[in-house]
Amino acid sequence: MVILFIGDIFGRTGRNLIKENLSRIKEENSVDLIIANGENSAGGVGITKEIYEDLLSYGIDVITLGNHAWAQKKIFDFIDDADRLVRPANYPQGTPGKPYVIVEVNGRKAVIINMCGRVFMDCIECPFKTIESLLSEIGDNAEIKILDFHAEATSEKIAMGWFLDGRITAVLGTHTHVQTADERILPKGTGYITDVGMTGPLNSVLGVKKDIIIKKFISSLPGRFEAEEDSGQMNAVLLRIDENNHVSHIKRLNLV
Amino acid sequence: MVILFIGDIFGRTGRNLIKENLSRIKEENSVDLIIANGENSAGGVGITKEIYEDLLSYGIDVITLGNHAWAQKKIFDFIDDADRLVRPANYPQGTPGKPYVIVEVNGRKAVIINMCGRVFMDCIECPFKTIESLLSEIGDNAEIKILDFHAEATSEKIAMGWFLDGRITAVLGTHTHVQTADERILPKGTGYITDVGMTGPLNSVLGVKKDIIIKKFISSLPGRFEAEEDSGQMNAVLLRIDENNHVSHIKRLNLV
Amino acid sequence: MVILFIGDIFGRTGRNLIKENLSRIKEENSVDLIIANGENSAGGVGITKEIYEDLLSYGIDVITLGNHAWAQKKIFDFIDDADRLVRPANYPQGTPGKPYVIVEVNGRKAVIINMCGRVFMDCIECPFKTIESLLSEIGDNAEIKILDFHAEATSEKIAMGWFLDGRITAVLGTHTHVQTADERILPKGTGYITDVGMTGPLNSVLGVKKDIIIKKFISSLPGRFEAEEDSGQMNAVLLRIDENNHVSHIKRLNLV
Amino acid sequence: MVILFIGDIFGRTGRNLIKENLSRIKEENSVDLIIANGENSAGGVGITKEIYEDLLSYGIDVITLGNHAWAQKKIFDFIDDADRLVRPANYPQGTPGKPYVIVEVNGRKAVIINMCGRVFMDCIECPFKTIESLLSEIGDNAEIKILDFHAEATSEKIAMGWFLDGRITAVLGTHTHVQTADERILPKGTGYITDVGMTGPLNSVLGVKKDIIIKKFISSLPGRFEAEEDSGQMNAVLLRIDENNHVSHIKRLNLV
Ligand SMILES: [Fe+2]
Ligand SMILES: [Fe+2]
Ligand SMILES: [Fe+2]
Ligand SMILES: [Fe+2]
Ligand SMILES: [Fe+2]
Ligand SMILES: [Fe+2]
Ligand SMILES: [Fe+2]
Ligand SMILES: [Fe+2]
Repeated sequence: MVILFIGDIFGRTGRNLIKENLSRIKEENSVDLIIANGENSAGGVGITKEIYEDLLSYGIDVITLGNHAWAQKKIFDFIDDADRLVRPANYPQGTPGKPYVIVEVNGRKAVIINMCGRVFMDCIECPFKTIESLLSEIGDNAEIKILDFHAEATSEKIAMGWFLDGRITAVLGTHTHVQTADERILPKGTGYITDVGMTGPLNSVLGVKKDIIIKKFISSLPGRFEAEEDSGQMNAVLLRIDENNHVSHIKRLNLV
Repeated sequence: MVILFIGDIFGRTGRNLIKENLSRIKEENSVDLIIANGENSAGGVGITKEIYEDLLSYGIDVITLGNHAWAQKKIFDFIDDADRLVRPANYPQGTPGKPYVIVEVNGRKAVIINMCGRVFMDCIECPFKTIESLLSEIGDNAEIKILDFHAEATSEKIAMGWFLDGRITAVLGTHTHVQTADERILPKGTGYITDVGMTGPLNSVLGVKKDIIIKKFISSLPGRFEAEEDSGQMNAVLLRIDENNHVSHIKRLNLV
Repeated sequence: MVILFIGDIFGRTGRNLIKENLSRIKEENSVDLIIANGENSAGGVGITKEIYEDLLSYGIDVITLGNHAWAQKKIFDFIDDADRLVRPANYPQGTPGKPYVIVEVNGRKAVIINMCGRVFMDCIECPFKTIESLLSEIGDNAEIKILDFHAEATSEKIAMGWFLDGRITAVLGTHTHVQTADERILPKGTGYITDVGMTGPLNSVLGVKKDIIIKKFISSLPGRFEAEEDSGQMNAVLLRIDENNHVSHIKRLNLV
Repeated sequence: MVILFIGDIFGRTGRNLIKENLSRIKEENSVDLIIANGENSAGGVGITKEIYEDLLSYGIDVITLGNHAWAQKKIFDFIDDADRLVRPANYPQGTPGKPYVIVEVNGRKAVIINMCGRVFMDCIECPFKTIESLLSEIGDNAEIKILDFHAEATSEKIAMGWFLDGRITAVLGTHTHVQTADERILPKGTGYITDVGMTGPLNSVLGVKKDIIIKKFISSLPGRFEAEEDSGQMNAVLLRIDENNHVSHIKRLNLV
């Protein structure tokens, strides 16, 4: 079985890359399940119902979120009904939306979990204790277990990889919008990468027009963010899953 | 001309990797200049005079530092006399040590500059204004200009790359200890990578024993850091410099 | 000579307190010069031209700002022409607005300076080096020197007090919106208080409706801030200045 | 009934102030219960068994802690046996030490709870959810309920006061080492102050020698902290508790 995980889809540029390339990539790589982080899909922050449905219509099976999950206020109107949308599991009890989604793929069940890190980010529930408790809850209801760990600090992401090694199928990092070159299969069989990267504008600062960000760093004054819309890049990873639900191969994709 | 830049050398494992492999790598790649970040070379934090001299004796030409520069108190005893040691240039005026070093390589002069980022790090002088002023000061005294931008946030590093594109030879990120897969030559000719990575223990959290870090994340209690000492990895980049002092090729090295 | 310094004026409630009480307080205390922090005067964040003019019309002589200075975008349209408006001096060179204002009071010249702290706040220029350089620049152009140090951390504010003791008339803290009880005259004669407090809604969280803030702390979800508008409190300090331009008496005001 | 709550006891200076003045203050004010924050009692960070016992011998009934609780490694050797020592309740489950202590005073039972804030501090468990659950657990086992909320941000402390108004006897802030002037009885009867202040060296920066801290701010270089040992100040609050276990009077003490 082959799983494709796509890094943070950023704005119109990111969505168009998916629309134009996803079916070809799916076919070329015999992909069985497509997961994408969509926390930046609506103009760079958050997601709307329309974009959520568009992304599914392009072939994505499950969409994960992150710290920007709540940026578009209308999220609260549809998140509870969105069966293929996963919000970070370590927000407090009572938070709208699903902390994980289970889908059936070729006779196997796959759970997709999303969590946020806490280092250099908002202080929410502990991701280590949350995943411990979620894995108990999920138990045998899924054979394949994919975690999108949306975090800033390399220390927290790598620690999560080691913490879950041998216990879930893959720990895939998102949030920094830069793909890392450390993809590997950890000693006990878990697929790991610190960051899958971003699917969005190539000549930008994390998706935003570069001059705005440079000016902000130099002036220390607030400035309105604006999504860059020039040529794009698609960042993703391909996971080959063996019959024991372990990753037998992990490969980075970086399509410019 | 070929320049080898080595990511943060971490502890004994990192130093041994250099000792055992550097001369072979140098020969195989016809390297003319070797720069390495040494901020973690002494047991994981800081650098000592002895280690500084050892690293030079292995073939490194210039050593850069970072936020951990001052971790070993004895640094203040030798930093002012260390001709091949560069401390972050954006510490306040009066800080001991050299903000840049100029070396001659095959008849060309190369300046190596080191700066720290400020996002999620200590608040020191603005790196954008500092590099602006350093470039004025250096002027024509060097043809090749290499910046080790030691920073946490991808936004700040990418912004620095765009800010300096076409104005210096290369902007090479360090500090996160994870190599990124975004090496490229920017449109106006500057070589760029968000992070070169770490030269140190492979099965660790940024060099530190993984169980210590996992326990710290779960317990929120302080714990003594201890460098991992098992098998290592060497992270670096090779830059090919053309006759116009531009990067004609940038290649990541990841030796396990 | 008597100076009245009023803590952060928050929204309509804060402005009404000033409108209704200032002339009486001025008269009762024979006040010669009135300074107020106005960074929250427009609905809780920032200031507008109209509100700036209103506050002056109520009897305030000079208005200082803080980290919220730029919250109302129209600030950039009038700040350069506003002769009685002081923005934090330690924003980068080229920032619009005045880093200090000199006014004449009863034949003496008083300079009012505003700076922001950096601990737990935006990383701008070092306030210690900035004030050093400003004091050189101002020199003998003012006899009375008042600093509004708009900072979060008690350590940074107290350190600034000690740094300037004997060199300026008073170091008055703002920003936390809570008045501290540590007003004193430091050994070399400088008047000091860690925070003057807030002039705004009493039964609120720093001026904002309390239920919104409690909900935000519990849910970790974003929420729209809304200024509380119930009964108010006025926080201020009265400084009596002797013939040597030292503070001979400092007294807190807390009018509910 | 009268309760005396003493702000963070800092180092030798703080301990000596207690030793020399406590019995007199107790007698003068007919104090029935004495609580003190001791997180800085050992040389400025943490507490030792010896100092814990000394402080009890001076007349303190219960000692609370804070973010510095774990600074002296030997704490782990005695904290589980220390019946009058309370550590922040919102550290993760399994943390050594007691999250609250119940003592009997004149036939009434009083629970003393300690929690840390999270804004600008370590990210531990949510203090709002933790206190909710603790209050359920304690139930009718105590009539008088005192919370030492050890937090940095005024917003978090004030929000906690409103959150608990009418539900516990008093919310007393500590940690900033500066006494605030906002002591009051909230509308539903809970005694409140944002910060009780520090009991330690008067002419210092939060207890530390002032020149060390000023130099650290200016140089951005690390420096060894050293407790100031000159003349001291004692910061505390006196609470008068009525027959309904409400605060009928709250009074700040600031003894120089
Ligand atoms: Fe993102
Ligand atoms: Fe994100
Ligand atoms: Fe490093
Ligand atoms: Fe570093
Ligand atoms: Fe304010
Ligand atoms: Fe402020
Ligand atoms: Fe303390
Ligand atoms: Fe503390």
